[in-house]
Amino acid sequence: MRLPSRVQIVDVGPRDGLQNEKQPVPAEVKVELVHRLQAAGLAEIEVTSFVSPKWVPQMADNAQVMHGIRRQPGVRYSVLTPNMKGLEAALAAPREEWPDEIVVFGAASEAFSQKNINCSIAESIERFAPVVVAAKAQGIAVRGAMSCTVGCPYEGDIAPAKVGYLAGLMKGIGVARVDVADTIGVGTPRKVQAALEATLAHFDVDAVSGHFHDTYGQALSNTLAALQLGVWNHQSSIAGLGGCPYAKGATGNVATEEVVYMLHGMGIDTGIDLDALIDAGVFISQALGREPNSRVSKAVRTKRAG
Amino acid sequence: MRLPSRVQIVDVGPRDGLQNEKQPVPAEVKVELVHRLQAAGLAEIEVTSFVSPKWVPQMADNAQVMHGIRRQPGVRYSVLTPNMKGLEAALAAPREEWPDEIVVFGAASEAFSQKNINCSIAESIERFAPVVVAAKAQGIAVRGAMSCTVGCPYEGDIAPAKVGYLAGLMKGIGVARVDVADTIGVGTPRKVQAALEATLAHFDVDAVSGHFHDTYGQALSNTLAALQLGVWNHQSSIAGLGGCPYAKGATGNVATEEVVYMLHGMGIDTGIDLDALIDAGVFISQALGREPNSRVSKAVRTKRAG
Repeated sequence: MRLPSRVQIVDVGPRDGLQNEKQPVPAEVKVELVHRLQAAGLAEIEVTSFVSPKWVPQMADNAQVMHGIRRQPGVRYSVLTPNMKGLEAALAAPREEWPDEIVVFGAASEAFSQKNINCSIAESIERFAPVVVAAKAQGIAVRGAMSCTVGCPYEGDIAPAKVGYLAGLMKGIGVARVDVADTIGVGTPRKVQAALEATLAHFDVDAVSGHFHDTYGQALSNTLAALQLGVWNHQSSIAGLGGCPYAKGATGNVATEEVVYMLHGMGIDTGIDLDALIDAGVFISQALGREPNSRVSKAVRTKRAG
Repeated sequence: MRLPSRVQIVDVGPRDGLQNEKQPVPAEVKVELVHRLQAAGLAEIEVTSFVSPKWVPQMADNAQVMHGIRRQPGVRYSVLTPNMKGLEAALAAPREEWPDEIVVFGAASEAFSQKNINCSIAESIERFAPVVVAAKAQGIAVRGAMSCTVGCPYEGDIAPAKVGYLAGLMKGIGVARVDVADTIGVGTPRKVQAALEATLAHFDVDAVSGHFHDTYGQALSNTLAALQLGVWNHQSSIAGLGGCPYAKGATGNVATEEVVYMLHGMGIDTGIDLDALIDAGVFISQALGREPNSRVSKAVRTKRAG
């Protein structure tokens, strides 16, 4: 099995995870979570979203969180910016509190795009074009999150050609790298590889991340399939934070603990200390009043307890 | 990705699963579970164990269960026989209630063998030799379950050479096929492939099954890795029945639902109806008074509920 020797993980728990948790989390807890993640060795953290608090009240403390973080050299802090107003809000702070990277987004499904943001895929990406230009003018990197690249809650299966179409639009507006997300977790290895391959027609393998949800328990086998294509950037969420908005009570993001366990077991370097990671997951789960949604966390803690 | 076009699954839920559940289950419920599994398309079912009720009270109704099953043509019914006394008990019934296959077992870890059955690996396999001869003389197939092939709760990592040694002993006493089990679920794809490769030095690929526990959430990626070696026989447990005796409260057997979902998603034929399978899992879980330990089951039922 030919696999990359090193994997870089973006922990999206503070943003993608907590945004999909019902319970509000105080800003100081989010800041502490970021501190624990970077101390555990995460070199990329998706911190928050500069979105209207009317739509996403969980992220209303975005500026406060960015202000609270003690930055660690070599770590990249990213934020979601749904529009120019979001970018302006992110840049309203002193320069040292700016994100290193902003995240713009689009869906590979027309129905999802229409239902979610009330415009076509092409329109949604066009609207992001000036945001990308403005961010890059300030020296800020831009990542493009591509959702529903395998399946869509409205359209069902998504053809790889649609993923390629979206990737081409992202490339066209100057996005430097893209995430291939299985937003509803229905993907299996061959389908995920097809979505990735359609993306790799537009972006270099170093610029493509896998983002797989574990709703059907498939995230790790999909990660393995992605690794076999050479994809070495992966996104996951500490303690499996974040439910699935399309299947109440179901699992959303794959737990970072699971991904790291698999990678280390295969001798792949991540720079992450699994024990410290597990403790970070316990910290945020306790703040939410529940158990980490991670089998690795449970098994390791059971073993620790003897 | 080169994968087999067809996979045969042995559901071990009625035996390996229920044996590791605390709650006793009435014989008629076990019989109904077997009926539901075969109706869902399972062509191999591990039904019970002819072991002393002193050691495994959950299997005390073994003869009653074998008696109660309405056999379906083309389905293979197997039972665990820990010794000659077990085989004799299995064959005490009328011929039409005999198992099609018996399962003998051994560990790839000396420490596990000593702690579990109080003798060396070599001694344990030697003791099975007359059982294998007696079974084959009656036209009954023999499968060898090899435990701790990746890790052991006492010894830690298990070298592939030890798996090869056990596989050679199994071959030596005339076992027709073997299971490569990751009993404590610590395996990751490369380690599992190494254990399988050590086994494939002694057995043809058609005679080797994968049996992966999901304690660390790794079972499906390990299954994918096994498929990539051509291994097309796999064992799993309906509704994820069976905990992990070495990590209280942790997951044991991977859920059959998860395995079937992945295989069907990759276009691999199993002959199994996923919806009927999910219903069978709900049936036995209700009998145990809990939810199926399967993300596929949860996600599909959430979707069904709209």
